[in-house]
Amino acid sequence: MKKYLVEFIGTFFLVLTIVLVVNNGTAAGFAPIAIGSVLMVMIYAGGHISGAHYNPAVTLGVCLRGKCEWSDAPGYIISQLAGGAIAALVAAFLLGADGPSAGDAAVRAFGPTAVAEFLGTFALVWVVLHTATTKSNAGNSHYGLAIGFTVLACAYALGGISGGAFNPAVATGVSIANMSAWSNMGGLLVGELAAGALAAVLFGVVYGKED
Amino acid sequence: MKKYLVEFIGTFFLVLTIVLVVNNGTAAGFAPIAIGSVLMVMIYAGGHISGAHYNPAVTLGVCLRGKCEWSDAPGYIISQLAGGAIAALVAAFLLGADGPSAGDAAVRAFGPTAVAEFLGTFALVWVVLHTATTKSNAGNSHYGLAIGFTVLACAYALGGISGGAFNPAVATGVSIANMSAWSNMGGLLVGELAAGALAAVLFGVVYGKED
Amino acid sequence: MKKYLVEFIGTFFLVLTIVLVVNNGTAAGFAPIAIGSVLMVMIYAGGHISGAHYNPAVTLGVCLRGKCEWSDAPGYIISQLAGGAIAALVAAFLLGADGPSAGDAAVRAFGPTAVAEFLGTFALVWVVLHTATTKSNAGNSHYGLAIGFTVLACAYALGGISGGAFNPAVATGVSIANMSAWSNMGGLLVGELAAGALAAVLFGVVYGKED
Amino acid sequence: MKKYLVEFIGTFFLVLTIVLVVNNGTAAGFAPIAIGSVLMVMIYAGGHISGAHYNPAVTLGVCLRGKCEWSDAPGYIISQLAGGAIAALVAAFLLGADGPSAGDAAVRAFGPTAVAEFLGTFALVWVVLHTATTKSNAGNSHYGLAIGFTVLACAYALGGISGGAFNPAVATGVSIANMSAWSNMGGLLVGELAAGALAAVLFGVVYGKED
Repeated sequence: MKKYLVEFIGTFFLVLTIVLVVNNGTAAGFAPIAIGSVLMVMIYAGGHISGAHYNPAVTLGVCLRGKCEWSDAPGYIISQLAGGAIAALVAAFLLGADGPSAGDAAVRAFGPTAVAEFLGTFALVWVVLHTATTKSNAGNSHYGLAIGFTVLACAYALGGISGGAFNPAVATGVSIANMSAWSNMGGLLVGELAAGALAAVLFGVVYGKED
Repeated sequence: MKKYLVEFIGTFFLVLTIVLVVNNGTAAGFAPIAIGSVLMVMIYAGGHISGAHYNPAVTLGVCLRGKCEWSDAPGYIISQLAGGAIAALVAAFLLGADGPSAGDAAVRAFGPTAVAEFLGTFALVWVVLHTATTKSNAGNSHYGLAIGFTVLACAYALGGISGGAFNPAVATGVSIANMSAWSNMGGLLVGELAAGALAAVLFGVVYGKED
Repeated sequence: MKKYLVEFIGTFFLVLTIVLVVNNGTAAGFAPIAIGSVLMVMIYAGGHISGAHYNPAVTLGVCLRGKCEWSDAPGYIISQLAGGAIAALVAAFLLGADGPSAGDAAVRAFGPTAVAEFLGTFALVWVVLHTATTKSNAGNSHYGLAIGFTVLACAYALGGISGGAFNPAVATGVSIANMSAWSNMGGLLVGELAAGALAAVLFGVVYGKED
Repeated sequence: MKKYLVEFIGTFFLVLTIVLVVNNGTAAGFAPIAIGSVLMVMIYAGGHISGAHYNPAVTLGVCLRGKCEWSDAPGYIISQLAGGAIAALVAAFLLGADGPSAGDAAVRAFGPTAVAEFLGTFALVWVVLHTATTKSNAGNSHYGLAIGFTVLACAYALGGISGGAFNPAVATGVSIANMSAWSNMGGLLVGELAAGALAAVLFGVVYGKED
């Protein structure tokens, strides 16, 4: 239960920041810096308790790599989705009339959305597995910086194409917040989950299964 | 006394930077980057002497967590408030006629102000307690980056709602500098102190009391 | 082969990010932050497998310094060039009609281009050799931050003069993506390779040959 | 001599970046990020050879603190001034007609200039002495980040008042580059050197003289 609470809190602040910085009108262009930073700091805070996934695609990749129990996965994912959903509601309350309403949700083409989400999520899970689950990098102080700033870079590069979720809990939160149409969810999830799985496979190819 | 001097210097440079970057007209949008950075560097400088709180809400959370003596709290808080107040005066001198005057102070609604300050301060104290007071994260090099960039992210997300103080010493400094109306102080303090206390309670739930 | 796959993936994401952020219209001014960040995170991910060069000029410098086998160099460089080329094609697909077309490629004067590329690449290889190949800095957590943010700083300082490649694989990718005229390649390569060699020589002068 | 070469190279790239990013028209607002980053990376590269001062005010503070031989100070300072001067000339060559000419140099009032330079340089030397010269922080990976981003934050806060040199070698370089009037040099040097000395004194008060 402690792990689930940490996953909830970390994902809550990630999605809260995303919804607010994209919509509050004070941070045009700076949004990816804020988003990458909040992910970084929540990873540094929660890593020693839960591993700090905050993302079902990361949980998938880490389970495939053998560093998370499959029996923990449902609790992790439910906590992440709940954190993202509640954050979207809190952000909507804080934004008030400034927030987007239902008709504003961007509708995106399936193909480019899935490709962009695949690329960003692959980079993210690739960095997570190498920096946070390997013996050769054990005890480092940069894992949070590396993971958070992967999202920073990919949000700048790919955000205009797919919205830049790279995370089913974020996809859920931004859909609830009317920032993305629910019909985009297919492309988002296909790209994200395929990337989580392929990153784990290629990680196994280059690193192997040892601890 | 050495600890108090370090708390004074760190809080002084934090509030000096806040008042200058928000008002000097050269850094629109970049202010949270400068503010998060100065907090980070002062934490790295002062952490080994005083713990580098620079914030009464952090001192409250760290005392509740058992990593700061309650008998030290008054000296810490007085040093922080004095550093923030004097920084506001020095910044006003440097800004001259460019600084805000009494009538310019933003007046904010109590509810959203308290909620936004609660959220940002909770994130801040949560990150402090995990990265800077636990055995499992002892000796890391990222605690300052994590704590400073929590304020960076929360200033982008929540600054437009509450002003983004997350810190009673900052709240005091920006009130003296005519950037926030004194009537906002109630909402600021309620949110900040409640967050400091709740973060310590939830930290205890997920980490426990061991060193 | 594992090393080559890691070099391919890292260079792919570096060039993908470069082509997208410069052309997708959402990140004016922020491009160097995204580019430096993606280089940083790919270095943290791949360093323990391949050394994370992602750059033929770095491979040249590291071979001259004696920390990479010359027999590995062809495989590294082919992987880097392939990663850069394929990334340019994927980015062009994602950009669609928003991407630059052949006539848009900037043509630059040989002299300033070679000088600017020399300066940026010298700084990059100098930082790589000191932070990632010396015993006195072994085990540090900052090598990726140092190397990635060298490119960030040099892209801001020198990008307007030469395009800011500092890397033959990036030069190849941006030429394929119509962001730089193929006729610039001479100045780019002369500056980059001379810098990689001179940085290794001066490194030897100040550090010596010991491990 | 090895130390002097490292001091020359680091200061060269610091001043090169400053002169280019402030004048090349591509980085408005981002200049402090590039400047803080290049200082950070050159500190990580050169720290293990020379201590990576790149600044006569830092050399003064470190000598007073007892971690640099006074007999090394002249060689350090000459190398730093030479690096700054030559960088200004190289940057002027690269900028061509886009660079500032003699009449463009800003003239600033002595008082605010000296106060602003004092504050920024005090913060810088305070962070250097705590993060890079103490046993309790030995072996950390954050000293370069802390020192570089002190200049980032202070450039945003104080750059508009004094130009934000915080460093006699930078003051020399920007004067040669016609970015600051030579008549400002008095205020710059008084503030910088007083800060270097006072930071060393206050460091001694809170930390003591032990290694």
